[in-house]
Amino acid sequence: MLAGLAHRTLAGPVNGLKTLEIWSQSIDPQVVTPSHQHDCEEVMLIIDGEGVLTMQGKQTRFRAGDTVIIPRGEVHQVVNDGGSALRLIGALGMAPVRVQFPDGTPIPLPWQQEQQA
Amino acid sequence: MLAGLAHRTLAGPVNGLKTLEIWSQSIDPQVVTPSHQHDCEEVMLIIDGEGVLTMQGKQTRFRAGDTVIIPRGEVHQVVNDGGSALRLIGALGMAPVRVQFPDGTPIPLPWQQEQQA
Repeated sequence: MLAGLAHRTLAGPVNGLKTLEIWSQSIDPQVVTPSHQHDCEEVMLIIDGEGVLTMQGKQTRFRAGDTVIIPRGEVHQVVNDGGSALRLIGALGMAPVRVQFPDGTPIPLPWQQEQQA
Repeated sequence: MLAGLAHRTLAGPVNGLKTLEIWSQSIDPQVVTPSHQHDCEEVMLIIDGEGVLTMQGKQTRFRAGDTVIIPRGEVHQVVNDGGSALRLIGALGMAPVRVQFPDGTPIPLPWQQEQQA
């Protein structure tokens, strides 16, 4: 499901955090995340590459150096429509982060399953 | 009070955030922050340079590429004891962020005063 997305949790519950997780992600060209939501605020710092955020019926282009803000509970989707890896830092205001499809169905996060294994 | 510290709020209350702020800071060589605390978790991503965190009676060296985690309410102090600018991204789990000296006295943040002016 998350093919083409490399994830590293820089800081999270394993470090004792209860209200905050920091992620480092690299999304391959032409990869699209599922449409999803989470019950916390998210900030993405775009490190390399470019892409498009779809949220609230709008598409917003972003590129390296940009800061992208996703309000709590907003359904959103990210696509890397560029020719190189899209690298970003994600800061999310809950720990552990729980992600849902737009209809509320939980999306299992592979890296959380690895932590539990 | 914060001479030698350049601050930029990448994301905060002005962007509608209620639970999260993201800061970009550059601390000059030989500059020491006040000992301080805040009632939220903090994660620092070290971008450039190096320094030392004093917390819980311990000193911990960090450098570019490191992730530094500060639990909620822990008194801490950062010194740039290197020869170049210490650049970091700070993620804090409250908005607006309120900072106190160890005895609980509020520390006014210049960038918040600027926002109010």
